[in-house]
Amino acid sequence: MGKPSIPKGTRDFLPKQMAGRNYIFDTVKKIFKNHGFLQIETPAVENLSTLTGKYGEEGDQLMFKILNRGDKFKKAISNRSEKETDFAELALKYDQTVPFARFVVQNQNEIIFPFKRYQIQPVWRADRPGKGRYREFYQCDVDVVGSDSLLCEVEFIQIFNEVLTALKIPNYIIKVNNRKILYGIAEVVGEKEKILDITIAIDKLDKIGLENVNQELSDKGVSKDAIDKLQSVINLSGSTSEKLNVLRKFLSNSETGLIGVEELSYIFNFVHELDYASSISLDVSLARGLNYYTGVIFEVESDGFKGSICGGGRYDGLTDQFGLKGIGAVGISFGADRIYDVLLENDLFPEELLQSLQVLFVNFGSEEAKYIMPLLSELRSRDISSEIYPTSVRLKKQMSYANSKGARYVILIGTDEIETGKISVKDMITGCQEKLSFNQFLSKF
Amino acid sequence: MGKPSIPKGTRDFLPKQMAGRNYIFDTVKKIFKNHGFLQIETPAVENLSTLTGKYGEEGDQLMFKILNRGDKFKKAISNRSEKETDFAELALKYDQTVPFARFVVQNQNEIIFPFKRYQIQPVWRADRPGKGRYREFYQCDVDVVGSDSLLCEVEFIQIFNEVLTALKIPNYIIKVNNRKILYGIAEVVGEKEKILDITIAIDKLDKIGLENVNQELSDKGVSKDAIDKLQSVINLSGSTSEKLNVLRKFLSNSETGLIGVEELSYIFNFVHELDYASSISLDVSLARGLNYYTGVIFEVESDGFKGSICGGGRYDGLTDQFGLKGIGAVGISFGADRIYDVLLENDLFPEELLQSLQVLFVNFGSEEAKYIMPLLSELRSRDISSEIYPTSVRLKKQMSYANSKGARYVILIGTDEIETGKISVKDMITGCQEKLSFNQFLSKF
Repeated sequence: MGKPSIPKGTRDFLPKQMAGRNYIFDTVKKIFKNHGFLQIETPAVENLSTLTGKYGEEGDQLMFKILNRGDKFKKAISNRSEKETDFAELALKYDQTVPFARFVVQNQNEIIFPFKRYQIQPVWRADRPGKGRYREFYQCDVDVVGSDSLLCEVEFIQIFNEVLTALKIPNYIIKVNNRKILYGIAEVVGEKEKILDITIAIDKLDKIGLENVNQELSDKGVSKDAIDKLQSVINLSGSTSEKLNVLRKFLSNSETGLIGVEELSYIFNFVHELDYASSISLDVSLARGLNYYTGVIFEVESDGFKGSICGGGRYDGLTDQFGLKGIGAVGISFGADRIYDVLLENDLFPEELLQSLQVLFVNFGSEEAKYIMPLLSELRSRDISSEIYPTSVRLKKQMSYANSKGARYVILIGTDEIETGKISVKDMITGCQEKLSFNQFLSKF
Repeated sequence: MGKPSIPKGTRDFLPKQMAGRNYIFDTVKKIFKNHGFLQIETPAVENLSTLTGKYGEEGDQLMFKILNRGDKFKKAISNRSEKETDFAELALKYDQTVPFARFVVQNQNEIIFPFKRYQIQPVWRADRPGKGRYREFYQCDVDVVGSDSLLCEVEFIQIFNEVLTALKIPNYIIKVNNRKILYGIAEVVGEKEKILDITIAIDKLDKIGLENVNQELSDKGVSKDAIDKLQSVINLSGSTSEKLNVLRKFLSNSETGLIGVEELSYIFNFVHELDYASSISLDVSLARGLNYYTGVIFEVESDGFKGSICGGGRYDGLTDQFGLKGIGAVGISFGADRIYDVLLENDLFPEELLQSLQVLFVNFGSEEAKYIMPLLSELRSRDISSEIYPTSVRLKKQMSYANSKGARYVILIGTDEIETGKISVKDMITGCQEKLSFNQFLSKF
């Protein structure tokens, strides 16, 4: 058998990478908890019928399906079926939001609304792997279900800010828009039925520029008159209240559009008094890919990093299709892999992450090891991570092991030290070595 | 569409269950870290070829395979293939150990041996679901790779004790045996080639009793003479050193068997000085199901709970099949689901787990909400979990929400409170309500 490998687009996480990832997860978890969000988990595997049709045709194709076993497999074979879906009843989850909607409906009698939950788990997409794009990756989602209050949106802006500030993400900007405004714009320019095409085109403004957006709109059959009208809102500038005033005027004939404007106005009114308001921007070109959004939408970018690092929005009614009607829902998601890349590129991981061990005892043999056992227990009971090298190999090898784990202290206990009751302690940062009683050593912590 | 459901043998974890599970995971993680173990993760999905043939025929059948997509699927169809394996190249991992062996070989140049790692992730088995048996469940593994030292086994006994003590598991017993002793016994009774049958039969002693074990041995073709000889060791009693002496005599003609005895002797010699030695028992009837064990094996039971809650052992040479020869390895695994059940049945979860929120602010309207925003920020910056109810519904509903989240304090701020600068604080445990300045309230924490 050749050198082993892992499937395309999947990854092993080595201890250093795990430490970085855990730093991100621990930071977001603490902030989610401080806001009263509770953790849940759903299975990796869902019924295929739960997921099918929720992510568009592309999503259905990119889903990893589980091969039916035994009789069910034989049945598909003997039926001479040629459809993938006849060979699978289960699939790996494609995102957390649809399984969460399923969860809410299935467990509706056991949860209290408004239900504030967070969820940090992997999802799977058979996408073409590329830089920062994986087939198995973690999503870190936080949502409120069962409330229409815009205070939820305000809270998510606070959470964005608290997380990004805690992680020291450089020059981030939180873009905010409202699907109702996009709908209103399509309505006002007389192309209501082209709302999806208009949304998709406008969303590309950042990437391809205004001229190409207009070309795409034209290609999709949007009238020249409509495209002309769009120009005044597609690329708004000025302060937030100036932008809102332009939109209010532009959308004066769209009831839905005006509701969208008032929603944003309410939210900005709440956040502008908080000191991070300068990092928030109303951006009418923000559209977000997924179909299920119904109101406010968010996206976060960081200076120098291509693409968004967080996103989210309101998706009222997602539970409708599972039989629970009229439930408001809004949430955001942190892109753990992208945030990891931003922290790595900007050297923002705390140095302590590399120190995976505090004390290494050198192993000089079985008798010395026995003497060391109760000392190890004492250190560990104080949450001081410590170990003895498992064999009495040459000192150099043991020291290099200590270095590789970033050990702060190396302790040498031979027959001398056992006799005198003093241990030799080498400080791996200063390089100094001293003889101490064990209690003197303990006082260093 | 009917009421949604999840696949057979999988589970949703609600916030209360997650809190209990996290309590277990956090406890073991802290102890693993204190011992210098580092966390890694491997993908959920592995190449089918990596996993096939490692768990016996049953394992291969119980593996969840991923359906090939697109052209590969079409190829299997057009070939009129009738083999499940022609429809799948990937599978969900069946345990953590084989993927870990693959990980070690694949990343051998990036890790320092001895490599101490832990891993807490789900695995999947298409087993018949039943009480405490799931198709998707977490394994919580801790292993050392790259050392033959018996100090590793000693450390795992320490870890068992530290974890089980920290979790207050009632009357647990750590059973220890050695595969080399089992091999030696089969050798000495003249049935070396029946080692597997003998192991499997002996392993059932607890469940079916001595008479049935002997019947099974006889059914498997083990000679009457061999069965007679087995009686003196199959059910040893007395102190550990008495047991070791019986075994030493019994195995005097088996080189391997004697090595096994000396290994256990070394380990018991180390642990008997530690104060938990009474919870450790040499049990010759312990065999463990998996084939890859080569030396010391462990299993932990808790009074009143049927079946083991932890297990493990030495499995030297598991990386051989991936091309890295002669690597020693030993590890243990905590059964999170079973430990959860033991804690639940014995009411051992800490009460704080139910308190998922410290402060709820009642919502009396938008103006009051705005006044409350900076107070929320202040509390959260001190890691005091707090939220405002998102809408100004009737007080009773807001109070019942506070109760459901186990909130310690409910704060009422209306126009009165805003005018006087004093907030009304209701202590949800004592039922008392008082008016305080915000700073006075902060001093409660």
